[in-house]
Amino acid sequence: MDIRTATAAQRDLAGTLFDQLRRDGLDEPGVTRDPYGPGEQRAHVTVTAAAQKLGLRIEHDAAANLYMTLPGREPTAKPIVIGSHLDSVPHGGNFDGAAGVVAGLVAVAALQSLGITLACDLTVMGIRAEESIWFQVSYIGSRGALGTLPDGALDVRRIDTGRTLAEHIADCGGDPDALRAGRRFLDPARLGAYLELHIEQAPSLVAAGCPVAICTGIPGNFRYPDAWIEGSNDHVGLPRRFRRDAAMAGAEFAMALDHVWEEHDANGVPMACTIGRFHTDSASHGMTIVPGTFNFSLDVRAYDEDVLANLDRQVDAIIAGIEQRRGVVFHRGTKARAAVGQVAPVIKAGLEAGAVELGIPVLRLGSPASHDAAAFGAAGVPMGMIFIRNENGSQRRQPRSAQFAQFDREPRDRCCQGRCPDGK
Amino acid sequence: MDIRTATAAQRDLAGTLFDQLRRDGLDEPGVTRDPYGPGEQRAHVTVTAAAQKLGLRIEHDAAANLYMTLPGREPTAKPIVIGSHLDSVPHGGNFDGAAGVVAGLVAVAALQSLGITLACDLTVMGIRAEESIWFQVSYIGSRGALGTLPDGALDVRRIDTGRTLAEHIADCGGDPDALRAGRRFLDPARLGAYLELHIEQAPSLVAAGCPVAICTGIPGNFRYPDAWIEGSNDHVGLPRRFRRDAAMAGAEFAMALDHVWEEHDANGVPMACTIGRFHTDSASHGMTIVPGTFNFSLDVRAYDEDVLANLDRQVDAIIAGIEQRRGVVFHRGTKARAAVGQVAPVIKAGLEAGAVELGIPVLRLGSPASHDAAAFGAAGVPMGMIFIRNENGSQRRQPRSAQFAQFDREPRDRCCQGRCPDGK
Repeated sequence: MDIRTATAAQRDLAGTLFDQLRRDGLDEPGVTRDPYGPGEQRAHVTVTAAAQKLGLRIEHDAAANLYMTLPGREPTAKPIVIGSHLDSVPHGGNFDGAAGVVAGLVAVAALQSLGITLACDLTVMGIRAEESIWFQVSYIGSRGALGTLPDGALDVRRIDTGRTLAEHIADCGGDPDALRAGRRFLDPARLGAYLELHIEQAPSLVAAGCPVAICTGIPGNFRYPDAWIEGSNDHVGLPRRFRRDAAMAGAEFAMALDHVWEEHDANGVPMACTIGRFHTDSASHGMTIVPGTFNFSLDVRAYDEDVLANLDRQVDAIIAGIEQRRGVVFHRGTKARAAVGQVAPVIKAGLEAGAVELGIPVLRLGSPASHDAAAFGAAGVPMGMIFIRNENGSQRRQPRSAQFAQFDREPRDRCCQGRCPDGK
Repeated sequence: MDIRTATAAQRDLAGTLFDQLRRDGLDEPGVTRDPYGPGEQRAHVTVTAAAQKLGLRIEHDAAANLYMTLPGREPTAKPIVIGSHLDSVPHGGNFDGAAGVVAGLVAVAALQSLGITLACDLTVMGIRAEESIWFQVSYIGSRGALGTLPDGALDVRRIDTGRTLAEHIADCGGDPDALRAGRRFLDPARLGAYLELHIEQAPSLVAAGCPVAICTGIPGNFRYPDAWIEGSNDHVGLPRRFRRDAAMAGAEFAMALDHVWEEHDANGVPMACTIGRFHTDSASHGMTIVPGTFNFSLDVRAYDEDVLANLDRQVDAIIAGIEQRRGVVFHRGTKARAAVGQVAPVIKAGLEAGAVELGIPVLRLGSPASHDAAAFGAAGVPMGMIFIRNENGSQRRQPRSAQFAQFDREPRDRCCQGRCPDGK
């Protein structure tokens, strides 16, 4: 039996786990695994039960992350962590995050069926609260484990419950006081590697007809989760020159950023810009009222710290120009940042060599999205990621297990290595 | 006693009425006189009581409009109607609409104190439901009186209550079945004139330092009260070329229209364009989700039917271009129209002659906003309007009675007749 045969034998394990995770989180359309809430909690129970069946050692940290460990031969060897998050966006896709945890358990089961004992411990990590839509903070679980949570994070409130992160963590058996005291469960200097498998959250692999990509880097970002524009609420009859239309100011801001992105695309500099919330005030807007306030969120991401810093300056300049031209004021609110995640060359080279050895066709791909791997990379842990093709994006309902099965079955001749437009 | 002295003597009547109307509708910030609801109803009670004190004849029609008549000498002379609306936008200004009804009662009281009996009946009309924000239909009260309500109007629902216009009219003692049968209370051919005084809903008079303007025309409009853009809800990591971002499409639409308006302004062609509702879906939007749907309303207005028709074609072309470039679909929903309101030259000339005779400085001004007078004009009734200066716009809270008193006290030397940038 080789490793290919061994992992194929674990398809039932993966299918059973995905089916149960989907039932656990079902919230049509899609699944909702709300972080530090009932949805995520049910996923943890399901995954823990599967790990117990495999005989793994179960541990938790102060952030209530889940560690499932297959012990190695040499207690002093630096452990390898394979992980991803078990939460989801509201009505998200079943594979987003969970696929990485399931893949870790499949790898463990394959090693067991091959009779291989690694020198180091191999820990599969079920990470808490990666989706920043809920607390508007990135990488809560992984940074909680590494002791790198930003100041004030424990006091932010989940947007739907209004309760603090500290309260939510305590609900799930975590210890917010230990986190506040800076205690960490994982010492970056004592970890050998962090590996993460994740669905691709963009259609580059689908477009290229290729099943797998090796990550070349994870974007850093800056964000304004809760910004708004102050203008003047006026009657529909007000001439243009007198208006201080907050919505028009918002539209100009969005178009200016879209233009910046278009230029970067044309120059082959990868970045992304998303204005996910973009809205007049439902309590006071109306067809015949010039909008006096306008709310928006902003997420700008890039793979290079210099590009990111330059984008930051461009946003400043765009805002200053609109404020002057339109007589409005931008209130940006909190600014959040995440560092660019560098992939360890040795891991990237190892994944590429392994793919060649096993005849698995791969692309090289800059991560479209943020991932916990970036938090490990930022803490100095050698990090690498694999992306697998996903037909419907991460945040849509998907047919049960279809995508994972497809990944496994993909015929080699549909790959176009090197021709993917996002390959780097 | 001349007419100037007589109207000055009625200042207490006006002040008392405005104070009571403000108390009736108080809903900080501003007043809410919801049409065919408790807010408007209280205003009708207050105005009716004042008319009864003046001994006027009180009538109502099937649309529950209020008629307060000072009889003339000659029963066959065509009556003059002085009117405006008694409803308001949510948290609107106390003078918006009500000032025209109060002005009518002040005119009646002045005639009485001067001992003048007109040849014709003089009817002060308290008009229902002018503010289209509530039912998204223009001129409900005036068109109900004139028998020109558009098909289906009685079945539209008030956006806050969800109940139909017919139900609301019945609540207030009206007769929706009679309206449905096309019965009208006012025969346009039998009316001598419709006159309306209204606050200016723009700062042109304030900017010009002039207290009064004579209206040169009321804009027609076309509207999409409830349009939306269909794109694709995707993850923040999706590259630009794959996105079908409904909010970015909305932003491009707004900017294109803003540019069209800017060009018309530069060419001296008056128009206005307002996108009052402009928003992602609060139930599903989030910082890390590319917006898949985007909602907006559109109001485009101009003083010339040809300009309006050309703008309509420009909107079509803009939408077609964005749909093609961004892979989105615009769903426009219902389209509403209102004809351009022509001011009767004889009334405009009469108002100008009267202003000169009394030494009242005036501007000539295209109405910034829509008014019931346009419905009378469209039905063939000779129509004219007066605008009075308003410091704070119509849809803001104003100090009690201050603006009306100011209009009355305005020193002549602050006028700049003909120099106002909006004068035509």
